[in-house]
Amino acid sequence: MQIVEMESLRNFDSRKMKKNSLFETARFFCDLYCLEAGQSQAPHDHAESDKVYIVVEGEGTFQVGAEFEALEAGQAVLAPAGEIHGVVNEGPERLVCLVFMAPHPHPHP
Amino acid sequence: MQIVEMESLRNFDSRKMKKNSLFETARFFCDLYCLEAGQSQAPHDHAESDKVYIVVEGEGTFQVGAEFEALEAGQAVLAPAGEIHGVVNEGPERLVCLVFMAPHPHPHP
Repeated sequence: MQIVEMESLRNFDSRKMKKNSLFETARFFCDLYCLEAGQSQAPHDHAESDKVYIVVEGEGTFQVGAEFEALEAGQAVLAPAGEIHGVVNEGPERLVCLVFMAPHPHPHP
Repeated sequence: MQIVEMESLRNFDSRKMKKNSLFETARFFCDLYCLEAGQSQAPHDHAESDKVYIVVEGEGTFQVGAEFEALEAGQAVLAPAGEIHGVVNEGPERLVCLVFMAPHPHPHP
Protein backbone atom coordinates (compact mmCIF):
# COMPACT_ATOMS: atom_id res chain seq x y z
CA MET A 1 0.00 0.00 0.00
CA GLN A 2 1.66 3.17 -1.21
CA ILE A 3 1.23 5.82 1.51
CA VAL A 4 2.95 9.20 1.70
CA GLU A 5 3.22 11.85 4.39
CA MET A 6 2.79 15.32 2.96
CA GLU A 7 4.99 16.85 5.68
CA SER A 8 7.94 14.69 4.65
CA LEU A 9 7.60 16.02 1.10
CA ARG A 10 7.54 19.67 2.14
CA ASN A 11 11.03 20.36 0.83
CA PHE A 12 12.34 23.64 -0.55
CA ASP A 13 15.33 24.50 -2.72
CA SER A 14 16.95 27.91 -2.31
CA ARG A 15 17.82 27.96 -6.02
CA LYS A 16 14.38 27.35 -7.54
CA MET A 17 10.87 26.04 -6.99
CA LYS A 18 11.02 22.43 -5.81
CA LYS A 19 8.65 19.75 -7.11
CA ASN A 20 8.21 16.88 -4.65
CA SER A 21 6.46 13.82 -6.01
CA LEU A 22 3.63 12.25 -3.99
CA PHE A 23 2.63 9.75 -6.66
CA GLU A 24 3.43 9.15 -10.28
CA THR A 25 1.78 6.59 -12.52
CA ALA A 26 1.56 6.10 -16.25
CA ARG A 27 -1.71 8.06 -16.08
CA PHE A 28 -0.91 11.13 -13.95
CA PHE A 29 1.36 12.72 -11.46
CA CYS A 30 0.66 14.35 -8.11
CA ASP A 31 3.31 16.70 -6.73
CA LEU A 32 3.82 19.07 -3.84
CA TYR A 33 5.29 22.29 -5.23
CA CYS A 34 7.30 24.28 -2.67
CA LEU A 35 8.23 27.87 -3.51
CA GLU A 36 10.32 30.17 -1.38
CA ALA A 37 9.36 33.84 -1.55
CA GLY A 38 10.40 35.18 -4.96
CA GLN A 39 10.36 31.80 -6.69
CA SER A 40 8.06 30.96 -9.57
CA GLN A 41 7.02 28.43 -12.15
CA ALA A 42 7.42 30.05 -15.55
CA PRO A 43 4.28 30.21 -17.67
CA HIS A 44 3.98 27.21 -19.99
CA ASP A 45 1.30 24.95 -21.38
CA HIS A 46 0.57 21.28 -22.06
CA ALA A 47 -1.37 20.59 -25.21
CA GLU A 48 -3.11 17.46 -23.94
CA SER A 49 -3.01 17.56 -20.13
CA ASP A 50 -5.14 19.33 -17.54
CA LYS A 51 -3.57 20.55 -14.28
CA VAL A 52 -5.00 21.47 -10.88
CA TYR A 53 -3.24 23.62 -8.28
CA ILE A 54 -4.49 23.44 -4.68
CA VAL A 55 -2.88 25.92 -2.29
CA VAL A 56 -1.92 24.24 0.99
CA GLU A 57 0.12 27.00 2.62
CA GLY A 58 0.94 30.63 1.85
CA GLU A 59 -0.26 32.64 -1.10
CA GLY A 60 0.64 32.72 -4.78
CA THR A 61 -0.28 34.60 -7.90
CA PHE A 62 -1.54 32.09 -10.44
CA GLN A 63 -1.84 32.66 -14.15
CA VAL A 64 -4.23 30.75 -16.40
CA GLY A 65 -4.50 32.06 -19.91
CA ALA A 66 -4.51 35.86 -19.75
CA GLU A 67 -5.83 35.98 -16.18
CA PHE A 68 -3.93 36.38 -12.92
CA GLU A 69 -5.32 35.74 -9.44
CA ALA A 70 -3.84 35.68 -5.95
CA LEU A 71 -4.88 32.45 -4.23
CA GLU A 72 -4.33 31.41 -0.64
CA ALA A 73 -4.54 28.18 1.36
CA GLY A 74 -7.81 26.39 0.68
CA GLN A 75 -8.25 27.73 -2.84
CA ALA A 76 -7.73 25.75 -6.03
CA VAL A 77 -7.56 26.52 -9.72
CA LEU A 78 -7.81 24.54 -12.94
CA ALA A 79 -5.38 25.03 -15.83
CA PRO A 80 -7.03 23.27 -18.76
CA ALA A 81 -4.98 21.69 -21.52
CA GLY A 82 -3.65 24.22 -24.00
CA GLU A 83 -3.91 27.19 -21.60
CA ILE A 84 -0.74 28.95 -20.52
CA HIS A 85 -0.33 28.69 -16.76
CA GLY A 86 2.20 29.38 -14.04
CA VAL A 87 2.61 30.69 -10.51
CA VAL A 88 4.67 33.31 -8.71
CA ASN A 89 5.28 33.47 -4.97
CA GLU A 90 5.59 37.19 -4.38
CA GLY A 91 6.20 36.52 -0.68
CA PRO A 92 6.83 37.15 2.09
CA GLU A 93 5.68 33.65 3.14
CA ARG A 94 6.55 30.31 1.62
CA LEU A 95 4.04 28.81 -0.84
CA VAL A 96 3.11 25.12 -0.88
CA CYS A 97 0.61 23.68 -3.32
CA LEU A 98 -0.63 20.31 -4.41
CA VAL A 99 -0.53 19.77 -8.15
CA PHE A 100 -2.34 17.08 -10.13
CA MET A 101 -1.83 16.63 -13.82
CA ALA A 102 -3.43 14.12 -16.17
CA PRO A 103 -2.73 12.51 -18.43
CA HIS A 104 0.94 12.30 -17.55
CA PRO A 105 2.72 14.40 -20.18
CA HIS A 106 5.74 12.12 -20.22
CA PRO A 107 4.52 8.68 -19.21
CA HIS A 108 7.15 6.14 -18.39
CA PRO A 109 7.24 3.10 -20.61
CA MET B 1 -10.34 31.36 -14.53
CA GLN B 2 -11.97 28.47 -12.72
CA ILE B 3 -11.26 28.91 -8.99
CA VAL B 4 -12.85 27.00 -6.12
CA GLU B 5 -12.84 27.43 -2.35
CA MET B 6 -12.40 24.13 -0.58
CA GLU B 7 -14.34 25.34 2.46
CA SER B 8 -17.44 26.00 0.34
CA LEU B 9 -17.29 22.40 -0.87
CA ARG B 10 -17.04 20.90 2.61
CA ASN B 11 -20.60 19.58 2.58
CA PHE B 12 -21.89 16.48 4.35
CA ASP B 13 -25.00 14.38 3.88
CA SER B 14 -26.46 12.60 6.90
CA ARG B 15 -27.59 9.71 4.67
CA LYS B 16 -24.29 8.80 3.01
CA MET B 17 -20.80 9.94 2.08
CA LYS B 18 -20.98 13.12 0.03
CA LYS B 19 -18.80 13.72 -3.03
CA ASN B 20 -18.28 17.41 -3.75
CA SER B 21 -16.72 18.23 -7.10
CA LEU B 22 -13.82 20.67 -7.27
CA PHE B 23 -13.10 20.13 -10.95
CA GLU B 24 -14.17 17.73 -13.62
CA THR B 25 -12.77 17.55 -17.13
CA ALA B 26 -12.83 14.95 -19.88
CA ARG B 27 -9.49 13.76 -18.47
CA PHE B 28 -10.04 13.50 -14.71
CA PHE B 29 -12.07 14.50 -11.73
CA CYS B 30 -11.07 16.06 -8.43
CA ASP B 31 -13.56 15.75 -5.56
CA LEU B 32 -13.77 16.52 -1.86
CA TYR B 33 -15.24 13.48 -0.12
CA CYS B 34 -16.99 14.28 3.17
CA LEU B 35 -17.85 11.41 5.51
CA GLU B 36 -19.71 11.66 8.78
CA ALA B 37 -18.64 9.19 11.46
CA GLY B 38 -19.88 5.75 10.44
CA GLN B 39 -20.08 6.51 6.71
CA SER B 40 -18.02 4.73 4.10
CA GLN B 41 -17.24 4.28 0.45
CA ALA B 42 -17.82 0.63 -0.40
CA PRO B 43 -14.82 -1.22 -1.82
CA HIS B 44 -14.79 -1.13 -5.63
CA ASP B 45 -12.30 -0.88 -8.45
CA HIS B 46 -11.74 0.85 -11.76
CA ALA B 47 -10.04 -1.21 -14.41
CA GLU B 48 -8.32 1.66 -16.16
CA SER B 49 -8.16 4.58 -13.70
CA ASP B 50 -5.80 5.41 -10.85
CA LYS B 51 -7.09 7.22 -7.76
CA VAL B 52 -5.40 9.24 -5.02
CA TYR B 53 -6.90 9.96 -1.60
CA ILE B 54 -5.41 12.82 0.44
CA VAL B 55 -6.75 13.19 3.97
CA VAL B 56 -7.54 16.82 4.77
CA GLU B 57 -9.37 16.42 8.09
CA GLY B 58 -10.12 13.58 10.48
CA GLU B 59 -9.06 9.98 10.11
CA GLY B 60 -10.22 7.10 7.94
CA THR B 61 -9.45 3.46 7.38
CA PHE B 62 -8.45 3.02 3.76
CA GLN B 63 -8.40 -0.23 1.85
CA VAL B 64 -6.23 -0.86 -1.21
CA GLY B 65 -6.17 -4.43 -2.42
CA ALA B 66 -6.02 -6.68 0.65
CA GLU B 67 -4.44 -4.01 2.88
CA PHE B 68 -6.12 -1.68 5.37
CA GLU B 69 -4.49 1.39 6.94
CA ALA B 70 -5.74 4.17 9.20
CA LEU B 71 -4.68 7.50 7.69
CA GLU B 72 -5.02 10.97 9.15
CA ALA B 73 -4.78 14.54 7.89
CA GLY B 74 -1.61 15.03 5.85
CA GLN B 75 -1.39 11.44 4.66
CA ALA B 76 -2.18 10.23 1.15
CA VAL B 77 -2.59 6.87 -0.55
CA LEU B 78 -2.62 5.61 -4.11
CA ALA B 79 -5.23 3.14 -5.38
CA PRO B 80 -3.86 1.91 -8.69
CA ALA B 81 -6.15 0.83 -11.51
CA GLY B 82 -7.57 -2.62 -10.98
CA GLU B 83 -7.04 -2.65 -7.20
CA ILE B 84 -10.07 -2.81 -4.95
CA HIS B 85 -10.22 0.29 -2.76
CA GLY B 86 -12.53 2.05 -0.34
CA VAL B 87 -12.66 4.00 2.90
CA VAL B 88 -14.49 3.82 6.22
CA ASN B 89 -14.83 6.64 8.72
CA GLU B 90 -14.95 4.77 12.00
CA GLY B 91 -15.32 8.10 13.83
CA PRO B 92 -15.72 9.86 16.09
CA GLU B 93 -14.63 12.84 13.96
CA ARG B 94 -15.73 13.79 10.47
CA LEU B 95 -13.46 12.73 7.60
CA VAL B 96 -12.67 14.99 4.65
CA CYS B 97 -10.40 13.91 1.83
CA LEU B 98 -9.34 15.14 -1.57
CA VAL B 99 -9.75 12.56 -4.30
CA PHE B 100 -8.20 12.68 -7.69
CA MET B 101 -8.91 10.11 -10.39
CA ALA B 102 -7.56 9.82 -13.93
CA PRO B 103 -8.47 9.09 -16.56
CA HIS B 104 -12.09 10.03 -15.90
CA PRO B 105 -13.98 6.71 -15.80
CA HIS B 106 -17.09 8.22 -17.38
CA PRO B 107 -15.90 11.12 -19.51
CA HIS B 108 -18.55 13.47 -20.77
CA PRO B 109 -18.93 13.70 -24.51
